[in-house]
Amino acid sequence: MSGVFVSLEGVEGAGKSTVIKALTEYFASRSQDIVFTREPGGTPIAEKIRSVLLDEHPEPMHDDCELLLVYAARVQHWHTIIRPSLETGKHVVCDRFTDATFAYQGAGRGLPMARIHELDHWAMEEQRPDLTIFLDLPVAVGRERTLQRDAIADRIEREDQEFFEAVRQGYLALVDAEPERFRVVDATAPADQVCRQVIGLVEEALDGH
Amino acid sequence: MSGVFVSLEGVEGAGKSTVIKALTEYFASRSQDIVFTREPGGTPIAEKIRSVLLDEHPEPMHDDCELLLVYAARVQHWHTIIRPSLETGKHVVCDRFTDATFAYQGAGRGLPMARIHELDHWAMEEQRPDLTIFLDLPVAVGRERTLQRDAIADRIEREDQEFFEAVRQGYLALVDAEPERFRVVDATAPADQVCRQVIGLVEEALDGH
Repeated sequence: MSGVFVSLEGVEGAGKSTVIKALTEYFASRSQDIVFTREPGGTPIAEKIRSVLLDEHPEPMHDDCELLLVYAARVQHWHTIIRPSLETGKHVVCDRFTDATFAYQGAGRGLPMARIHELDHWAMEEQRPDLTIFLDLPVAVGRERTLQRDAIADRIEREDQEFFEAVRQGYLALVDAEPERFRVVDATAPADQVCRQVIGLVEEALDGH
Repeated sequence: MSGVFVSLEGVEGAGKSTVIKALTEYFASRSQDIVFTREPGGTPIAEKIRSVLLDEHPEPMHDDCELLLVYAARVQHWHTIIRPSLETGKHVVCDRFTDATFAYQGAGRGLPMARIHELDHWAMEEQRPDLTIFLDLPVAVGRERTLQRDAIADRIEREDQEFFEAVRQGYLALVDAEPERFRVVDATAPADQVCRQVIGLVEEALDGH
């Protein structure tokens, strides 16, 4: 595939949305044709699956159901948007990808990593981005930010601090396991500094291509 | 598990709904506590997934996405309704179960059977009903019935005759592979005769338990 595939990961309140807005504006101003997309979602069908994942329901969602929905959305998004874009030489920046599954469903919910790997192999043949930027900050700081921002939290955002601490540790374990793919950005820094750093990392990845 | 798990399968227009209505009334009149449920669906979350599966979308649904959604609904239904019912000694009659996946997504859509088996193993540990009743009839007869009945066909019902022929052959192959689990009922017979036959088969399964 000839495009570069970048994913952006971060714990709650790390400033992913701000960074993506800055990336979009920066590359638009340079007339660089980059596909910005997000997970779960990115296509009409995948966005409907996203709703099922994030809505509140009158019953608890079984962990395996959640994981299968995540992958249903991912394969639809991958085959409809990401893969065709990369194959035609377009670069893709995706708000969350497979690492989020290992962090949230694996480390967060405690689903066995081996089971996630099996499903990831079945559905995606362990496809990974070329570069993954992880916006890291202490959970308490991120929670403080999201509570100030969001009037209504979704099903995932309503989890407790312990869950998000496990998610963060899950991400850091992924970084440790694949240091060549990950770049960690300190998200406690001022927003414009974080944005500049991420733009620099993305540019480097596209230039080095 | 102490309850008996019965599934009902059939090609389009085989009269499954009529049969289930008759079963429900028959066992209600005998005050037998049987859980009637359906796939995909059977719980609020699984019914939402059913909508995503059956609605029309502005993009084609990737085969793997369809299969993952089918299993997302199935695991939710299994862990929330079917398994707990069976474990507390209740009998369960389910409108379609895993065989439908092998018939529709496997034989119908042409997804490799080995891939479905892998996902079925991952999600359900190859759980099967104790008894599966297959209402069989020639595809042309079934199509004729559904066209008369339904003003609006869903995403699956809109497939062509060739698809449904493959689905029927898929079911017959499953019957051949597991003759001890399946009972085939000739669905070209008059409705009341088909209903009586199915009621007899279910009673036999519950009595023999």
